[in-house]
Amino acid sequence: MDEFQFINTIKQNYYRQSSVVKGIGDDAAVFRQNTKDIVTAVDTFVEGVHFRKDTMSAYDIGFRALVANISDLAAMGAQPAFYLVSIVFPSHWSPQEVQHIFQGMKAIGRSYNMDLIGGDTVSGNELVLTITVIGYVEKAQARYRHHARAGDIVFVTGTLGDSQAGYHIITNQKKYKDAAYYTERHRRPVPRVDFALGIPRTVRVALNDVSDGIANEAAEIATASDVSMQLFDEAIPVHESFHQFSKSKQYQWKYFGGEDFELIGTVAATNWDILVDTAKRVNLQLTQIGKVFYEPEYNHVYINKGNQQLERLLQKGYNHLK
Amino acid sequence: MDEFQFINTIKQNYYRQSSVVKGIGDDAAVFRQNTKDIVTAVDTFVEGVHFRKDTMSAYDIGFRALVANISDLAAMGAQPAFYLVSIVFPSHWSPQEVQHIFQGMKAIGRSYNMDLIGGDTVSGNELVLTITVIGYVEKAQARYRHHARAGDIVFVTGTLGDSQAGYHIITNQKKYKDAAYYTERHRRPVPRVDFALGIPRTVRVALNDVSDGIANEAAEIATASDVSMQLFDEAIPVHESFHQFSKSKQYQWKYFGGEDFELIGTVAATNWDILVDTAKRVNLQLTQIGKVFYEPEYNHVYINKGNQQLERLLQKGYNHLK
Repeated sequence: MDEFQFINTIKQNYYRQSSVVKGIGDDAAVFRQNTKDIVTAVDTFVEGVHFRKDTMSAYDIGFRALVANISDLAAMGAQPAFYLVSIVFPSHWSPQEVQHIFQGMKAIGRSYNMDLIGGDTVSGNELVLTITVIGYVEKAQARYRHHARAGDIVFVTGTLGDSQAGYHIITNQKKYKDAAYYTERHRRPVPRVDFALGIPRTVRVALNDVSDGIANEAAEIATASDVSMQLFDEAIPVHESFHQFSKSKQYQWKYFGGEDFELIGTVAATNWDILVDTAKRVNLQLTQIGKVFYEPEYNHVYINKGNQQLERLLQKGYNHLK
Repeated sequence: MDEFQFINTIKQNYYRQSSVVKGIGDDAAVFRQNTKDIVTAVDTFVEGVHFRKDTMSAYDIGFRALVANISDLAAMGAQPAFYLVSIVFPSHWSPQEVQHIFQGMKAIGRSYNMDLIGGDTVSGNELVLTITVIGYVEKAQARYRHHARAGDIVFVTGTLGDSQAGYHIITNQKKYKDAAYYTERHRRPVPRVDFALGIPRTVRVALNDVSDGIANEAAEIATASDVSMQLFDEAIPVHESFHQFSKSKQYQWKYFGGEDFELIGTVAATNWDILVDTAKRVNLQLTQIGKVFYEPEYNHVYINKGNQQLERLLQKGYNHLK
């Protein structure tokens, strides 16, 4: 199979988005969007760093990589529309395996009516998958990190630490309760698009997706909004069987274990009920985990362990350049 | 330097494009385009495949990578606007070297008023640079490969084979005439944006950029337009000192040596004068190199060597999956 034949196997037969003017097949793709704002992000996944063949199928590697990107759009309050995929293709991967990566992407892409409109396929020594996503949001309605204000409630969707627990289960051949649940959360996370799009436009929220662990994501909101926040340790939502793991693992995973692709955000206390309704409508757990306050000179995130003492939560998200 | 400090060193202090709503600093970038079509493409460059540290400076690697992407926009008739850069950063590259890559991109980006609005920085074993570009074109005015028609003139801008000649000079320590010219063409090619944007809207042209050699690019136009074409061997424009290289190298480089980032296209014979004027206005060489004809059942590209015989030109562009 040569490069051109390969592209033919992954090309869509038709496009779902009416805004596509030209998809795959020219020097570039063309689309038209005259009423909404356009949102775009890019994420790269490297074999051995972000995924391994022995813990995840090719299909799931593709699935999860696109989820990570869709999750960025969700965190902006944007409706997913397109993706472009660039792949560095080493000789130890077969074209069939790479096709499975695309099948995984297409499966999750399809469920959000996304179209694959471009990409590049090149050779190299390690598999690198770079996805560019494009989405739409009503004009001036994007959800930013800098929207938090003192007095806001801090919330998070779903439960935290599941993805890391799933990875632990996959890489440790012991018996665990709800093993299938955790491994599924690791391999096929669900981006919280429905929730993000369900929040009424008039409600101000700051939003961030939990790709790097909430310690990191909360700090980003605090810095961007020039506020501090405290998180109630007892309130951090975890799965009912999460206590089967050691205390140190629980702590590590729920605060610093990323890739749950939940949403963390803040909202005015007066609008909390509206968010609760939104979450109920999309059948998603929503938990108040802290509050925002103003602290002169600092933008810190603290854990409140219920003993009157605020303990500073330092960022320990994965740093690729350390 | 950690990942966040690194991003701060490459972030722009201000944005040139008025359509930027949010640049770097959130989960995604946001822009607004109410009147034009949006054009987007992605290209990946791998160390050892697309570039080598010993033949090109980090600055030039960045410069040329963004040129390749801008060239895709030019081939669509689109005005460059934004780029996003994803970089896989191995330990044998220093943060300073990677900053030089960004400086090279910024230099060429600045000359087209482009803004860097997003990206990703991850670790890996080999340097991989993935650039997503976004541009604008007047509604329904994009220049496509499928726009060629029987009777059209085939044209090309500039001279061909220079980039490969430059690479040859860099990797062979012999004396060559105009060495500086060729190496400059290899390291810092000029995308033909001015010419592409200068073509009046009413003129139908098919366009493709010469990234893989004209044999390949001409074949893409022929296939997309369901036509055949013949190229006049004598007419293929080369630099005045190009004959210093062996006949076989000349042939190889001008037809199959890519990365000149010139534009190949077709236009109705009646509009040829308009294109000549456009080229003159932007001070660019423009050469008629062939003609388009209809051939039942085939979409072939032939070379006419002046001996009445058409010789089929097969595609030999770089195939990454061979």
